[in-house]
Amino acid sequence: MAEHARPATTGRHTRLDAYADRYASRTKGMTASEIRALFAVASRPEVVSLAGGMPSISGLPLDAVAESVADLISTRGVSALQYGSGQGDPVLREQICTVMALEGIVAHPDDVVVTVGSQQGLDLVTRIFCDPGDVVVCEAPSYVGALGVFRAYECDVVHVEMDEHGLVPEALRDTLGAARHAGTRVKLVYSVPTYHNPAGVTLTAARRAEVLEICATHDVLLVEDNPYGLLGFTDGPPRAMRADEDERVVYLGSFSKTFAPGLRVGWVLAPHAVREKLVLAQESATLCPPSFSQAVVSTYLAEHDWRGQVKAFQETYRERRDAMLAALDEHLPPGTRWTRPDGGFYVWLTLPAGLDAKAMLPRAVTARVAYVPGTAFYADGAGRRSMRLSYCHPTPERIDVGVRRLAGVLGAELDLRATFGSSTPAAGRGSSPYEMPEPDSS
Amino acid sequence: MAEHARPATTGRHTRLDAYADRYASRTKGMTASEIRALFAVASRPEVVSLAGGMPSISGLPLDAVAESVADLISTRGVSALQYGSGQGDPVLREQICTVMALEGIVAHPDDVVVTVGSQQGLDLVTRIFCDPGDVVVCEAPSYVGALGVFRAYECDVVHVEMDEHGLVPEALRDTLGAARHAGTRVKLVYSVPTYHNPAGVTLTAARRAEVLEICATHDVLLVEDNPYGLLGFTDGPPRAMRADEDERVVYLGSFSKTFAPGLRVGWVLAPHAVREKLVLAQESATLCPPSFSQAVVSTYLAEHDWRGQVKAFQETYRERRDAMLAALDEHLPPGTRWTRPDGGFYVWLTLPAGLDAKAMLPRAVTARVAYVPGTAFYADGAGRRSMRLSYCHPTPERIDVGVRRLAGVLGAELDLRATFGSSTPAAGRGSSPYEMPEPDSS
Repeated sequence: MAEHARPATTGRHTRLDAYADRYASRTKGMTASEIRALFAVASRPEVVSLAGGMPSISGLPLDAVAESVADLISTRGVSALQYGSGQGDPVLREQICTVMALEGIVAHPDDVVVTVGSQQGLDLVTRIFCDPGDVVVCEAPSYVGALGVFRAYECDVVHVEMDEHGLVPEALRDTLGAARHAGTRVKLVYSVPTYHNPAGVTLTAARRAEVLEICATHDVLLVEDNPYGLLGFTDGPPRAMRADEDERVVYLGSFSKTFAPGLRVGWVLAPHAVREKLVLAQESATLCPPSFSQAVVSTYLAEHDWRGQVKAFQETYRERRDAMLAALDEHLPPGTRWTRPDGGFYVWLTLPAGLDAKAMLPRAVTARVAYVPGTAFYADGAGRRSMRLSYCHPTPERIDVGVRRLAGVLGAELDLRATFGSSTPAAGRGSSPYEMPEPDSS
Repeated sequence: MAEHARPATTGRHTRLDAYADRYASRTKGMTASEIRALFAVASRPEVVSLAGGMPSISGLPLDAVAESVADLISTRGVSALQYGSGQGDPVLREQICTVMALEGIVAHPDDVVVTVGSQQGLDLVTRIFCDPGDVVVCEAPSYVGALGVFRAYECDVVHVEMDEHGLVPEALRDTLGAARHAGTRVKLVYSVPTYHNPAGVTLTAARRAEVLEICATHDVLLVEDNPYGLLGFTDGPPRAMRADEDERVVYLGSFSKTFAPGLRVGWVLAPHAVREKLVLAQESATLCPPSFSQAVVSTYLAEHDWRGQVKAFQETYRERRDAMLAALDEHLPPGTRWTRPDGGFYVWLTLPAGLDAKAMLPRAVTARVAYVPGTAFYADGAGRRSMRLSYCHPTPERIDVGVRRLAGVLGAELDLRATFGSSTPAAGRGSSPYEMPEPDSS
């Protein structure tokens, strides 16, 4: 048989995908992002990417970590490289409780399940709770990876309005009331209350209490996804919602932003009965989360000044946030609005009326700047006038360059709109000003 | 709120699981194994466990691995600790193709998807193919972890007979024919053709061709799960079924047995269109498989004599297989039968008529030996007369001790049967001989 036989070329099949009629129903919802191809271009070094959410881990003390990990392998390799518990390493689960205590959470290690990043935490939570057609309530906009999970489990996503103070409680109350009235089953309310991805806003303390009360009234579980909680730029971390409600909140945490994402170590803190189901789901999904990654994280927490490192990350990201806000203030045209995050990685930007961030993206990439169009963060096609800008990975200088380029693209779009009344000129026109970008200054 | 509030104790809920009525349909199938509690006892050091499938990784060159990994972190930590591709690291995928070439497989790295152990490979394959009620054909017995995945996706498992030469082709033909006749949809045939877990048998070359032809006739995908392929005790590894059919076989591989399971690095080799769906499913499940684990495996393959290490593992396991077979030959009562594996980790043992391996297990653990009852490897309650014995982890001396203890338990069971005609005396009786085991000799 041919080394690279493909369905379309074997002669036995004429369809592009010979398996198309045997996939599961859920697989129909799994489609490659329409912007994926573009991101291959956007990852070229000459493009300033304000698109990705990669943490800046170059500040980690790599030599010291290397030494610890070498010692771990030499002295405890036989256990660290062996299968482990489906629930995760008991020592690491204790350390996770110490980390969560910084956000006011009092928890027992037995209620923690270690996951392959918090993405897998969300996958497992959705797996145990959601049948096809169940409703999940999400903020508008919401984390793109969460929307992918809900789609994979064939859930119906209903968005609820946010403003600069986070999820709007009245809107949540109305949505849950309407669902009850309509007889639809809301299984989860999914929220990123702190340093929201992508919106860059934080739910106020008063609203947190209100949202918990609304979830209690409607007897709905809240999924509190909190990967950025320790990465704030002001005082201590906001008090987690889980800190004030232990029965109706499933909390998702992660070491991806406070240590390193390539280890894929996250966790779920769940009510006890739910935790039992999560462990069974984890065993079915992976047998156990990676023991070695867990041992590396556990060693790091035990042997290094991880609190000091988190402070260093805060400084790095604050400096980049400042660079982005300064550049936006200086360069962006009137009528453009954006959020001013107190922590985390993202600014949410809303374009002047009539502009379309999704249609504009190829032209932005041509101008050597990339972002994620707002549509990625909605399950219902909304978000065309918005985009997510991330400041986590590029240096302040590159952020300034990127925002200048973006401003150039916006200016050109506005000119076009003024001239033609449309922001979506045909592809291939060669005379628009942002196709001749300034030289890369970095 | 109380630190350890539990649904049953909060006063708000009186049921044991306050969430019982809101789980997904699939979650009903997720129940803790009835033998799990017993295994907590069986993991005590005085018990010889012939139950687990933990590889013997103490033979790894840990100091050399430690040095390589330290260098990896110091020199390439910023990328090895960062998010990676959802499909897995391109360099590792090339190395995986080199590994598979040992089994006659010619494959392109672009058709490989890295997974969190091959367990996750099976989870993702089932996720993209199987709707609730779809049929998966499995050997009888079949890998317990696979049955767990099929249950989690609400598939119906139909078992097909095996004998000492593996899956019986005529039985497969009959089963697929009957399914077609009945109008049921068979989505996958799941097989461990080489060094079967738990049966310890290998599908012959002639039967491999027959099985492929039967799958072609019925247009069914074969999932070839091959974690043990390189761990044979005779000549080179058996030719993989995927080596002779690249369109209708989804191949699952793993580094858990050839390197280390705690890294959780496995892979799927799939037809191209299927591979695309698997990557989307992986992105939804974890964003990406652990970059760091992949870098450790890739470095190990590049810098260490991994082929020599596989040979060393073969020697270790052959010695233990020999110890187990010798002990079984010497100690077990007439009427007991077992398989004689040419590789892998397991012997499948069938008890004399009238004995019940599941009922006997608590008495075996009391006698300080543990095994997995055959019922774990059937979706339909069969297997009571059988058990899986693993020789992968205990030393030859401990294997001998364990088999002697098992023989003592069997002898007592046979005595009971001769006296009372039953192998399942009431719990708590104090006079059966195997409750006074010989002193631990190890």
